[in-house]
Amino acid sequence: MDFWVSIGSTYSYLTVMRIAEAAGAAGVAVTWRPFNVRAIMVEQNNIPFKDKPVKTAYMWRDMERRAAVHGLDLRVPAPYPLPDLPFANAVAVLGMREGWGEDYIRETYRRWFVGGERPGEAPNLPDSLAALGLDPEETQARARAPEIEAALAAETEEAKAAGVFGSPSFVVAGELFWGDDRLEAALDWASGRHPALS
Amino acid sequence: MDFWVSIGSTYSYLTVMRIAEAAGAAGVAVTWRPFNVRAIMVEQNNIPFKDKPVKTAYMWRDMERRAAVHGLDLRVPAPYPLPDLPFANAVAVLGMREGWGEDYIRETYRRWFVGGERPGEAPNLPDSLAALGLDPEETQARARAPEIEAALAAETEEAKAAGVFGSPSFVVAGELFWGDDRLEAALDWASGRHPALS
Repeated sequence: MDFWVSIGSTYSYLTVMRIAEAAGAAGVAVTWRPFNVRAIMVEQNNIPFKDKPVKTAYMWRDMERRAAVHGLDLRVPAPYPLPDLPFANAVAVLGMREGWGEDYIRETYRRWFVGGERPGEAPNLPDSLAALGLDPEETQARARAPEIEAALAAETEEAKAAGVFGSPSFVVAGELFWGDDRLEAALDWASGRHPALS
Repeated sequence: MDFWVSIGSTYSYLTVMRIAEAAGAAGVAVTWRPFNVRAIMVEQNNIPFKDKPVKTAYMWRDMERRAAVHGLDLRVPAPYPLPDLPFANAVAVLGMREGWGEDYIRETYRRWFVGGERPGEAPNLPDSLAALGLDPEETQARARAPEIEAALAAETEEAKAAGVFGSPSFVVAGELFWGDDRLEAALDWASGRHPALS
């Protein structure tokens, strides 16, 4: 199952923190695929929270309740939106190549939603990299390489081709599920437990 | 628990068809409160599907899957949006006063999502009323009374005051839940089974 995740999405915090355990229990292998959700949402005129204070207030409360259901720490509202969303995800693309991507995404999300620090910038980004045993300056320099920027753009195009329009999304054999609240349905689909469609 | 429902919302089909059984099993009393969701969404610049073909296509597929989970009939895409959304809900307001409101909402939704007929207009509206044993012409004339229009507007203002920004929504002692996929969480909250928030 492909887990399309974009650092900068609020609800993705819940998924990032619980997908490893949930997928493990379901026996489903997951590939994390960081992408730039903002590029797709702007292109599709899909702006869920900007200038929508009532819906935004609801989103934070709903996240509080769902975090409690899943036993996750959460301090809301977290800083939002993220100016450095693309770079936060470029670092994730580099990390996926080098084997520390999942740990980085969890670490930067934890510092965002528990510590109140924005991903993609200091102190969250260098501290997250240091926590993984990486050299923050050297790693950020490598994440700024044109090749990594191109790889993030290519992954974003692949997400769009798969029908992805938001984060988190899950794709199982061409079937798309969107939202942390569809994680269980996606895992059911991947393991053949979803009811057949008429 | 207040069930804020606006005929014209797609996902509300799932809730309309299953809330009686789900709430009964949870031992939660439900008050159906029809309102004009469009008036609130336009005011809040909350336009989820217009000019968003990718997200709209996903919504229909997601509804298909969720209908299968709940064992509900569904033919998608159903006609959308509804030109006569306000009148469809004015009839519902009248019906709630006279005791046939819930049956009307279920009947008109069934004809919309299984029969492909738009609520609020012929043939769906008169046939739905006739199926309940009502005189279609006389009932529609009463639903056009200024008093009913005012009652729908007053309910819509009450929904807005409760923080409602979409349909279906559930309000339990000031706590708002939005979406068919939050029905179980709302029932858990109403019956004291939701985990406490920190």
